[in-house]
Amino acid sequence: MKDQSYAAAKTTQIRLTRRSPEYWRVTIDHPPLNIFGPEMLPQVNEIITAIETDEKVKVVVFDSAVEGFFLIHLDFLAKLDDLAHLPPGPSGLHPWPEMLVRLSRSPVVSIALIRGRATGMGSELALACDMRFASREKAILSQFEVGAGLVPGGGPMARLSRLMGRGRALEVILSANDVPGDLAERYGYVNRSLPDADLEDTKRLVNVASLPPDIEIESGWNACVASMARPATQQRIKTLLERGFCKPGDAENHLGDFVGR
Amino acid sequence: MKDQSYAAAKTTQIRLTRRSPEYWRVTIDHPPLNIFGPEMLPQVNEIITAIETDEKVKVVVFDSAVEGFFLIHLDFLAKLDDLAHLPPGPSGLHPWPEMLVRLSRSPVVSIALIRGRATGMGSELALACDMRFASREKAILSQFEVGAGLVPGGGPMARLSRLMGRGRALEVILSANDVPGDLAERYGYVNRSLPDADLEDTKRLVNVASLPPDIEIESGWNACVASMARPATQQRIKTLLERGFCKPGDAENHLGDFVGR
Amino acid sequence: MKDQSYAAAKTTQIRLTRRSPEYWRVTIDHPPLNIFGPEMLPQVNEIITAIETDEKVKVVVFDSAVEGFFLIHLDFLAKLDDLAHLPPGPSGLHPWPEMLVRLSRSPVVSIALIRGRATGMGSELALACDMRFASREKAILSQFEVGAGLVPGGGPMARLSRLMGRGRALEVILSANDVPGDLAERYGYVNRSLPDADLEDTKRLVNVASLPPDIEIESGWNACVASMARPATQQRIKTLLERGFCKPGDAENHLGDFVGR
Repeated sequence: MKDQSYAAAKTTQIRLTRRSPEYWRVTIDHPPLNIFGPEMLPQVNEIITAIETDEKVKVVVFDSAVEGFFLIHLDFLAKLDDLAHLPPGPSGLHPWPEMLVRLSRSPVVSIALIRGRATGMGSELALACDMRFASREKAILSQFEVGAGLVPGGGPMARLSRLMGRGRALEVILSANDVPGDLAERYGYVNRSLPDADLEDTKRLVNVASLPPDIEIESGWNACVASMARPATQQRIKTLLERGFCKPGDAENHLGDFVGR
Repeated sequence: MKDQSYAAAKTTQIRLTRRSPEYWRVTIDHPPLNIFGPEMLPQVNEIITAIETDEKVKVVVFDSAVEGFFLIHLDFLAKLDDLAHLPPGPSGLHPWPEMLVRLSRSPVVSIALIRGRATGMGSELALACDMRFASREKAILSQFEVGAGLVPGGGPMARLSRLMGRGRALEVILSANDVPGDLAERYGYVNRSLPDADLEDTKRLVNVASLPPDIEIESGWNACVASMARPATQQRIKTLLERGFCKPGDAENHLGDFVGR
Repeated sequence: MKDQSYAAAKTTQIRLTRRSPEYWRVTIDHPPLNIFGPEMLPQVNEIITAIETDEKVKVVVFDSAVEGFFLIHLDFLAKLDDLAHLPPGPSGLHPWPEMLVRLSRSPVVSIALIRGRATGMGSELALACDMRFASREKAILSQFEVGAGLVPGGGPMARLSRLMGRGRALEVILSANDVPGDLAERYGYVNRSLPDADLEDTKRLVNVASLPPDIEIESGWNACVASMARPATQQRIKTLLERGFCKPGDAENHLGDFVGR
């Protein structure tokens, strides 16, 4: 039933693909600009709800099927009256900022792969994700709103100042400038700017999908001890030890690659 | 009357120039070192008060007329007894840290253009501004105080750790080292280090001076909707749409430049 | 007596050397991997206690005597049952995270010089230090635990997100990737990545050891005025003035070097 509904959803502008039960892709496909039309809001809601309620999904990657654009701003050529005045969600926020908050709070690891313009709502969606990776050649991030006499509505000031400090956050918002990938990395707007060809290689993050289901990010000693006692972890450590873990040699010299395999 | 008082102020060490009612420059002109003499404290106070009480000013840029120096430390050759023991201001802080807090809190966008040494109080003034841009060739920032057995008095520890994290803030303060422009950018001490010839090109920020008067930086959906309803914004969006906004083409491909024009 | 006990400690895996009463080195020397065996926990405790109780020490530098390794993870080949279930310390935390918190809170300036792999507990120790400097050629930092199905136990999520923002902190922890020195600098994981040959040149920080004993990092005007009144500071400023401080010339043009001499 559920899969059926998503098969249907493929004709909409936002496409959900389950690459595995744990690893989902959400692909924005609304050519030519990936502009945000009012009809996309319920689609985003449906996807966030699926992320929140599915019991297996662990990693969601947001990307785009449209060359040059990740997701841009509201379509001011569309009828916007209804959108602006939608009733607030349970938290009291307007549905758009509320969906962003829901995404940030969900236990799923969310990653934005930015290969084109992510401006306005596109920047806000990327900022609501847990991580952001940018194509060095193609990514442009911005909060353009102030340049049009508008105020950004999805909370970028709060998120930007935590990522890059108040001075740079004010610059991004008040200048309304385009921020290309490499500068976005220097400012902390994205985790990293990578050659476009390497961007897909976030597989190490996607590997998180193979983790035991109860990993807690909020690290603490009790969680650490509990994780040691888990049979799956015991087995994993046993395997790692058989392969050279805790002894001089390749395993310890390249531990990051070693545990990633 | 007021203009008259500022014309008079031109003979002092800190010069206020109104390039327009919205855009002011504050130029420190106390050769040869832009050293901070006790007589400058009331001048700074006068300028901060003008910034706080003027109804039109939106952007204030701080710079220097002295080659090689933005603003440095207290003049220890001057009589300092009175300065150290001035009565506290309304907030309970000493007048100097209080003026810095007043500048940070004022709704005006404040920008430091650093083309020389900004050490001690100069660094503290820059840190109290909303943004800082540094000349790659000429800027040097530092909190030199600990090197002289002194404690910095204008609160740099609080501001530096929010900009660059605790480890780097401790290094800047405890090492008392000179920090040149490019390193200052890597540490987040300044927004960006730019070739000296490009530094003046902060016009995009100065353009903020043309914004509607009620732009709120604290972005939220309600402020966003309110901004959409503003007649000036409606007109601006109409103009942008006529020029290609929301349609494929140059406007969307270079949105940052487009809205900046 | 005390020195005697530290002479004895030289046969253990963690060596304390007093280069002067104010400047100590703590050297991890447990070849071939500097792996963390359960027997090291009381040794770390002894050193942290010495740091907390000594009245003269001002700077403690942590380094390694083992080529290629700073300090790595728990030795899973050792008997760990006792370690995991040690009674909590006074704060209620397990002894390991508690020792790290005690180090961070001590008034001593703590510096990690990272010339090899600092993974797991090694990364946690470095993060608990006030500052971290990395060898460009040799340093590798990581929290590898999630890659082994484990949760890090020494609180890296809290410390990493304050240093590099939430997005990058999540990436470091969830990817479990090796982070080489230069990337560690770009992420804010370390203060700076330096050529290995220059790493020892943190002498400016070690100079802090010559500071008056009551310097307060939490800078404020009252502390500043108090520091001015100190006879040692008065003498220092007098000497600096005699050498050109507050006058045009070399002293002011290179103030960082000048006060550092």
